[in-house]
This record gives sequence, structure tokens and C-alpha cells, in this order.
Amino acid sequence: MPDHAVTLRDVARRAGVHPATASRALNPETRLLVSEGTARRIAEAAAALGYRPNAVARSLRTRRSHTIGVLIPDLNNPLFPPMVRGLEDRLAADGYVALIGNTDGRAERERQVFEQMRARHVDGFAVATAHRSSPLLAQAAAEGLNVVLMNRVADGTGFPSVSPDNELGARLAVGHLIAAGHHRVAHLAGPQCLSTGQSRYQGFQAAMADAGLAVPAGCVVFARAFSIAEGRRLGAQLLAAAPGLTAIAAANDMLAVGCYEALEEAGLSCPGDVSVVGFNDMPFIDRLRPPLTTVAFPHYQLGTEAAAMLLARMSDRLPGPAPAVRLAPELVVRGSVAAPPRPSRP
Amino acid sequence: MPDHAVTLRDVARRAGVHPATASRALNPETRLLVSEGTARRIAEAAAALGYRPNAVARSLRTRRSHTIGVLIPDLNNPLFPPMVRGLEDRLAADGYVALIGNTDGRAERERQVFEQMRARHVDGFAVATAHRSSPLLAQAAAEGLNVVLMNRVADGTGFPSVSPDNELGARLAVGHLIAAGHHRVAHLAGPQCLSTGQSRYQGFQAAMADAGLAVPAGCVVFARAFSIAEGRRLGAQLLAAAPGLTAIAAANDMLAVGCYEALEEAGLSCPGDVSVVGFNDMPFIDRLRPPLTTVAFPHYQLGTEAAAMLLARMSDRLPGPAPAVRLAPELVVRGSVAAPPRPSRP
Repeated sequence: MPDHAVTLRDVARRAGVHPATASRALNPETRLLVSEGTARRIAEAAAALGYRPNAVARSLRTRRSHTIGVLIPDLNNPLFPPMVRGLEDRLAADGYVALIGNTDGRAERERQVFEQMRARHVDGFAVATAHRSSPLLAQAAAEGLNVVLMNRVADGTGFPSVSPDNELGARLAVGHLIAAGHHRVAHLAGPQCLSTGQSRYQGFQAAMADAGLAVPAGCVVFARAFSIAEGRRLGAQLLAAAPGLTAIAAANDMLAVGCYEALEEAGLSCPGDVSVVGFNDMPFIDRLRPPLTTVAFPHYQLGTEAAAMLLARMSDRLPGPAPAVRLAPELVVRGSVAAPPRPSRP
Repeated sequence: MPDHAVTLRDVARRAGVHPATASRALNPETRLLVSEGTARRIAEAAAALGYRPNAVARSLRTRRSHTIGVLIPDLNNPLFPPMVRGLEDRLAADGYVALIGNTDGRAERERQVFEQMRARHVDGFAVATAHRSSPLLAQAAAEGLNVVLMNRVADGTGFPSVSPDNELGARLAVGHLIAAGHHRVAHLAGPQCLSTGQSRYQGFQAAMADAGLAVPAGCVVFARAFSIAEGRRLGAQLLAAAPGLTAIAAANDMLAVGCYEALEEAGLSCPGDVSVVGFNDMPFIDRLRPPLTTVAFPHYQLGTEAAAMLLARMSDRLPGPAPAVRLAPELVVRGSVAAPPRPSRP
């Protein structure tokens, strides 16, 4: 990048003020310390000279980079783009920009990305990759870093968080299957090391217990990742191991899409032979055949809420215990649930 | 963020060297200037003290932030996440991180995001938002900034670029419709201010001319954006204004999805009544009903190629005229094209 000759000193000289005054006037956070007339004169001088504030130098002076590190599992999961957009839009309104890192659910990559961002003096982190037990987040908490958790929560870090009410959401989805007449309901559960996987499994169990239904052996399987490939593998396993199965509650939409594939390969139709529900209501899931019945929560708003919470923490506008915001889930009934077939499959 | 007490000076003192030597040894770009034994001693001292390099301060010294600004139209278009992943993965391999900005196709937002990134001293830009004529890019070119263009190209900037061969891709798609027996083929074109929109329109015209087919009046419409909403609006317009139409070549997959909606609203089936082709082969488009016949190119590779090109330019390993890499497009035949209905629609 070429050097720009115009410095803060030039602006101060033209405006007839001390460089420190010019600095205060040109920094949004300290502008009110300068009288209105002086601030206007300095702004005019800066504009006339084409002065471009050096954010890196300012970051050294103020210890603020106005940059946030965002850690997500994988941008290719359609759940995350709207969440990141919400985050970025809210941050931009306060002059912050976002560094993005994908971790692919790998702890060593998560740590590497985290350290890379930290070396660039980010002012805080928005983390969508939390495991329930996370040495990295425990360390961040011990060091007093600014972190907000998105979508997933972690045990005992004390960080503020924004996530859907996963247990309630799963109860809604499983309750919907039961209300449609299903008794042999399987759960394609997510990884139990993630709060989303654990809470949705608890919701499944609670809904079955509320209805007085037993969970038959072989009817709960645990995915290693929230991926289509895992949904396909475990969907096939459920169909083979659980005869008489008429419905599958998948712990998220990616797993549900994998179930669709497993059903197709087994020559079974959805919802004619087996009903399927998902979780997330991710973009484009309403356009599949059949359109997936799933649990929705506002992804974009999750991002904006997380950003607002992080900005408030960083500016000490949000002191005290960290809030854990739960977004209300909503069942979205589409075309992947029907009454169980009669006679039931052998 | 808490201060970290350990400085470069502490490391130098422990290793018994001058701070400048410690600095050179700990910077990957200058490490070879220090003898191997000394470099090892300094690295051990840094590890023992828990020294964390201050990337912001280094950025001021070296004028390198190891940060790249990435401008995309909208992360919610499924075309972009894999491209950004490819970019990020390749950049990470060289110790670079990515700042992400969405512009929503708005010039003022593009400039704002660009300036915010520039104020953070990014070393270069990867730009997927280029208009054919772009004052912002012209200015960046005049100032000698490091920029690589992704997916779209701009006239006369001289920046290197990686994009699909759009004209060839459109010829493949339209040729496929003609080979299936369609004569009255409509084009739902993209914005002509974008290279993608323009080149695909040229490909459509060339394919029709090659086959000796006229383009009937009302059979080409121009979208204001590559969006589902525009596809739906203009798809309905085509169906109303072009009787006897049996096929629509949409300039991208988002527009094609909008066509699906327009057909459904008109009570017409795809491909029974009207065939549709898209462009991009974006994620999940193979799971729609019918699965979309479209033009594929490697999105992830486009991102890695762009990153490699930018890294090479920044390190002067790629001098001379800027390369314009064209990725080969490939027709992916799925379920949205059939022979025209007989008798043709009135």
C-alpha cells in the first residue's frame, strides 16, 4: 500500500489546534470532549487535506482495533450465513468489522484461528463453535477476554450467550409427530459434546415421557457431526435396526436431509412411509421435496443480538452477570410429516 | 483485553541478543537473516516467557497486517460460502486472516466497507462485488492497491481475476435446451452492469444464432439483481408475455429458483410444461424438485485460486500483466429439462 502523506499533525496545523485536540475531534469516542466549533474546523481541515485516519496506529493508542473475531464451524452450513450477516450488520453500525474463521469443528484449528485473531488485537469474539467443555473458552474466561456465545453455549465460562431454546424446540417437533399418531419415534441425535445436541436429546426424551411412550432399543443414535453425511449413515442404520419405525426426529436440518437420502436409498417415501422433522429451518429447506417440517428461530436476529450484547459488554454498558438469551423456537409445519402408514411396516 | 507483560525486549534480554535480532528471528519473513542457533535460542526464550507477538505493532513496523479484505454481495447467496471458504483456507496457510464485508450490491455500502477495511491496513482485497464499470476499483487501481477479482470482472482496471467462462457456460446450457427440441427459448438475463450478466446474455445470443433460431420479441428480460424475487417477478412476466414459450435459460440459479415459483403459481409444471436451466450449480440446488439442470464450476477452487493469486501479487512473485484465469464450466444435466410438450402451449 502506498504511503499517504497527510498526517494528523498536518490537519492540526491547518485547523490551528494541538495535534491531541485534532486526534480527539476525529475519534468518534472522544469527539464530545472538543467544542463544537473546533471540532467542525478540524473536520473541515481533515476533509480538505484528504486525511485518512490510520486505524492501526489508533489501535495502538486506544487499545481498540474495532475488529471482532467470529468463529463458526463451517460457512457451508446454511444456518450460519444469515447469523453472520446479522452480526456483521449490527457491528458495522458501530464501526466494527468482522474477521471470519471456520473451524470445521476441530479443536486445534479453533485454537489456531483464535490465536491468529488475538494477535490482531480483536476487541472481542463471537463464538458459534463452543463445545460444552472447552479449554480454549475456559482460558479466555480466565483471561477476562470479551466473548459472546452464539447458537451453542458452554458450561461454566460465564460468557453471555444467545441461543434458541433447544429443549422446548425439540419437544415441539417430537410432540407434533406424536400428535400425528406416531408411537415408534426415533431420534437422530447430535453430538452430545455440544449444547445443541444435548438439549435437543433431552427435549426428545421429555416429549416421549410426557406422552407415556417408551423409547425402543436402537431408536436413538448419535451423530459425530451435524452433517448430511452423518444423517445419511445413521438414517440408514435406524431403518435397518428399528423395524416398525414410522418417524425420525433429527436433531438438525442437515441430519434430516441425510435422512431423506437414506429413505430414498431404501426405497421408502417421506412422509408416506416415514415422517421426518428437523431443527433450524435453514434457508432452502422449505424448497426440498417434501418441504421439511422443522423448528424455526430467527437466525439473523441471533446474530444482531449477539453483536449488541458483545458491544455492550465491551463498553461496560452491560455489567453484572452475563445474560443467557434464549430465542423462542417455533414449529413450522410443512410436508414431511403424515399419519403413520397402516398397516405399519413389518 | 488485559495487557501482556512480556515484550520483545524481555525475550531479547533472556536470549542475550539485541531486540532487533529477536524481532527478525520471530518474524517468519525475516527469520532467515538470523543464524540458526541464535534463532533457536530466541524461539526458546519466547516460548519460555510465553511471548505473544503483537501483530498490530508488527503491522506498523513491517507495514503488513496479514489481513485481507473480502467483499461479497451477500453471504446468503449459497454461491459465496464455498468461495469464501476456499479463500480463507488458502490465506490461512500463509498466516493471513480475512475481514468479511457484504455490500448487498449497493455502491455506497461497498465504498464504506472498503474504507473500513483500508483503515485497518489490509494488505489486499478479494472482491466479488465488481461492477463492469466501478469508480471504486478504478481508484484502487490508480492508487496501486492489491486487488484480485473473484467471479465477476471489471473493465480496464488491470486487476488479476478468477472467474468462470460465462459465455461458454451459457452456450452449453442453451445448447442443451435446443438439443432437447426447444425453439422458443427465453432468457432471464442478469444485470448487464455485471460481467456475469453480460457474458451469459452473449452466450445465449450466440447459442441461438448458431442454431439458426430467432429470439422472439419479449423473450429476453433483464433482472435488476441475481435474486429469487427477481426470478419470480420476471418468470411470471415471461410466461404472460411470450405465448408458446417452452424453455427458460436463467442467468443464475437464484433466478431459476424464482422461475420455479412463477411456474408453480401459474399452474405449470417443470419440466413437463416448461424446461428451466440455471447457472452456478450452487449448493442444495441438486436437492430441489425437480433437481436443476445447470452450469457448474468449482466454487471452492475459485476461492483458493484467487487467494493464491493475491498472495503472489503482494509478494511480487507474480509480476507483469495481471492474469485473467477462466475456470472451465461444465453442464450438469439433472431433471429440469425435457422435450417440449406436444402440442405446444397456445
